[in-house]
Amino acid sequence: MTTINRSGSSSDNGDEQRFMVDIITKKRDGGRLSNRDIEYFVQGVVDGVIPDYQTAALLMAIYWRGLGDDEVVSLTRSMAGSGVQLDLSDLPGIKVDKHSTGGVADTTSIILAPLAGAAGVRMAKMSGRGLGHTGGTIDKLESIPGFRVNFSVQEMIGLVQETGVAIVEQTDDLVPADRLLYALRDVTGTAPNIGLIASSVMSKKLAAGSDRILLDVKTGRGAFMPRWSDAVELAEVMVGIGESFGVQTVALLTNMEQPLGRRIGNSLEILEAMEVLSGHKKGELLELCLYLGAELLVLAGLAQSRREGAEKLEKCIASGAALDKFRQMVISQGGDGRIIEKPELLPLAERSYPFGSTGEGYIWSVETREMGQALANFGVGRAAQDKKVDPSLGVSLHKRLGDYVRKGDLLFEVAAHSEKDAGIIGAQLQKMYTFKPTAPEVSPIILGRVDSTGYHELTD
Amino acid sequence: MTTINRSGSSSDNGDEQRFMVDIITKKRDGGRLSNRDIEYFVQGVVDGVIPDYQTAALLMAIYWRGLGDDEVVSLTRSMAGSGVQLDLSDLPGIKVDKHSTGGVADTTSIILAPLAGAAGVRMAKMSGRGLGHTGGTIDKLESIPGFRVNFSVQEMIGLVQETGVAIVEQTDDLVPADRLLYALRDVTGTAPNIGLIASSVMSKKLAAGSDRILLDVKTGRGAFMPRWSDAVELAEVMVGIGESFGVQTVALLTNMEQPLGRRIGNSLEILEAMEVLSGHKKGELLELCLYLGAELLVLAGLAQSRREGAEKLEKCIASGAALDKFRQMVISQGGDGRIIEKPELLPLAERSYPFGSTGEGYIWSVETREMGQALANFGVGRAAQDKKVDPSLGVSLHKRLGDYVRKGDLLFEVAAHSEKDAGIIGAQLQKMYTFKPTAPEVSPIILGRVDSTGYHELTD
Repeated sequence: MTTINRSGSSSDNGDEQRFMVDIITKKRDGGRLSNRDIEYFVQGVVDGVIPDYQTAALLMAIYWRGLGDDEVVSLTRSMAGSGVQLDLSDLPGIKVDKHSTGGVADTTSIILAPLAGAAGVRMAKMSGRGLGHTGGTIDKLESIPGFRVNFSVQEMIGLVQETGVAIVEQTDDLVPADRLLYALRDVTGTAPNIGLIASSVMSKKLAAGSDRILLDVKTGRGAFMPRWSDAVELAEVMVGIGESFGVQTVALLTNMEQPLGRRIGNSLEILEAMEVLSGHKKGELLELCLYLGAELLVLAGLAQSRREGAEKLEKCIASGAALDKFRQMVISQGGDGRIIEKPELLPLAERSYPFGSTGEGYIWSVETREMGQALANFGVGRAAQDKKVDPSLGVSLHKRLGDYVRKGDLLFEVAAHSEKDAGIIGAQLQKMYTFKPTAPEVSPIILGRVDSTGYHELTD
Repeated sequence: MTTINRSGSSSDNGDEQRFMVDIITKKRDGGRLSNRDIEYFVQGVVDGVIPDYQTAALLMAIYWRGLGDDEVVSLTRSMAGSGVQLDLSDLPGIKVDKHSTGGVADTTSIILAPLAGAAGVRMAKMSGRGLGHTGGTIDKLESIPGFRVNFSVQEMIGLVQETGVAIVEQTDDLVPADRLLYALRDVTGTAPNIGLIASSVMSKKLAAGSDRILLDVKTGRGAFMPRWSDAVELAEVMVGIGESFGVQTVALLTNMEQPLGRRIGNSLEILEAMEVLSGHKKGELLELCLYLGAELLVLAGLAQSRREGAEKLEKCIASGAALDKFRQMVISQGGDGRIIEKPELLPLAERSYPFGSTGEGYIWSVETREMGQALANFGVGRAAQDKKVDPSLGVSLHKRLGDYVRKGDLLFEVAAHSEKDAGIIGAQLQKMYTFKPTAPEVSPIILGRVDSTGYHELTD
């Protein structure tokens, strides 16, 4: 498991090792890394000349000392330049991109692409797979029979020319530095750092070539960045990066105190996306999609105001245009378009097992992160990176924060392959609810907004 | 250069990786590691199951957050137990050991072993090689023709039974954890940390099996720990470790503001050791050796007071017993005992090249660390760990801090293979002296003392 020369500290590339030690000690002592230091580091990671132990030491020093604004911009630039950078100029109009920092039951991308697409937005979106307690857009889309996610850049541009929107898997040659650094951060306790997260997200968005970027920064107990002040700072840093590259960037701070939608699981979340797109399901998920979509329309120059944008989107849902755009997207990416009329074509577990509440009172809190992690371990996500997800498993939630529940009331249903499996996960999930005799104050779904002029509370 | 599974974060030993991530994040967040955490970590490093990048991340977190007293003791215990532990009970009497934290022109071990040995002290000393700007006792001894440093433990015990003292190279199976961790610390900017240094030194001393430990903790610009407060803390932590293992431990804080002796270079330092042992050379090096030796005699129960101990040692020098013990040690370890009468048998460069002062005034400072590093790069030490040292190179210094020097006065002589070589290193060394028109206050060689009752200024 080791690469260091165990008889001593030095090797043939002794000078490189020493140069990297200088970079590590500079950051360790609270100094600022120069553009040259950062470019050397990122290129060295990609070229494999910097050993992982030096990278890990630097990551921990960065976790400790943080990165200044100029260092974050420099790191983002070096990472974005570490691989292929997309050129979307063959596509007419303003291209927009959207990114969520990750949550539970978050199907906004799958709803937004066709919803905004129906209103004329062009979106060539690259997405990822499930990570930790969060689901992944690509995993969810793959539960649609036949749906393809691997396309070349030219093929993706062709898809967008055809239907206006495409969601494909991020290719390995896009920002390879981020893939390498992320894998190390995950196993060295250096993942949750604002500068590293911001440069990771923004390097991928910038390399993906869109003209405008919309960020959905989650906060609350189901988010990677649960604390409000951290989430605001992350949003500000990411918007600052976008602006410093001349790419207009807006971030919404949104509530992840409970699962966003009411279904968790890959097929189940496709089902819920179709329920929202068809207008059959109201609630916070729809509300957030309309808000994000309105921002996208404004960014793309297709609406003068968020209000106008939201109205256009509501019309697209009511007219069936949104659901139809979803069908077009599914078919153009090789998927079975009949799922819209026949959702039973989705791979769903044979049965759903109902679970009643074990407590009584107002639902005071839901351990959202633990819920996501338990379901990931159950097979909804990956217990380990090389494991496959089971698209047929999941849970449908019947109650939300602030609802009053009596003992035995239906709390959720588990889609599982057997009563035994359902019983195990169901008992875990039941424990994640806390009840109190008084109603909690439930925060709105949209908590704030950051643009180039800074943080704003939302008044509309 | 990488061992991580680059397609993701997980591998077959996913659980072990996660357990180590828990340890890293605990320390990262300022928590205390349990005995179990530390034992798992040290054993995992030795067994090779913990990848170097996780070790590096933990080392940087430890550098940041520090180690508590109980963590340092636990780390020392785990490291000492990671390999062979010596049993010196076949040797009669109280066995003492001595360690220096490293400096320039520091030949105290080579003087002390025969000096204290002549007064009856039994010392089975394991030493190391040059490191960074400091020389190594083993490198110096190897410049004696025929001198062997590699012996088994039983052979070493035999040597001590024969002559009372032996200095051998630390074997690879003694504290393997320290060798692995040190190599990583060196290339990850995590070497200069008090808890890590203390556990590194003390684990080796404890595994080496002596009954009493004397530590020479250097401070000042030629030391690894230049700041006074750091040196005092390091001494206190190391004495605390020794006491917690029931091994009486004393630390002297000594001055490394300038090279300790007047000669730097492997053969030259053997020459100087013989000059001191024969009574031909006075000055700080002798003064320090008498002080350290007196402590050793008290620790070994061979003197009631340091004063009595110092008087015994002075007699050993005056009578020739000290030099004779050195001769016995050299011969018993296979070396050519004729060097005592014929120092020209040592491998010395053909010529010495004199260098005059380029400045005028009182010598205000000597860049001691830079001097050691420049000479190491010149060939006195190792520019890289796999390089050989050249025992014939070095420098003899003619002036010390506080001396008044006129421009052109002889400052030092360089032993080199050519005038050109000498000119290059000589010009570098000349720049390391600073002169001022007023005399500096020169600190004494012994600055303080730490024992189980804490820190003491020295009054005698």
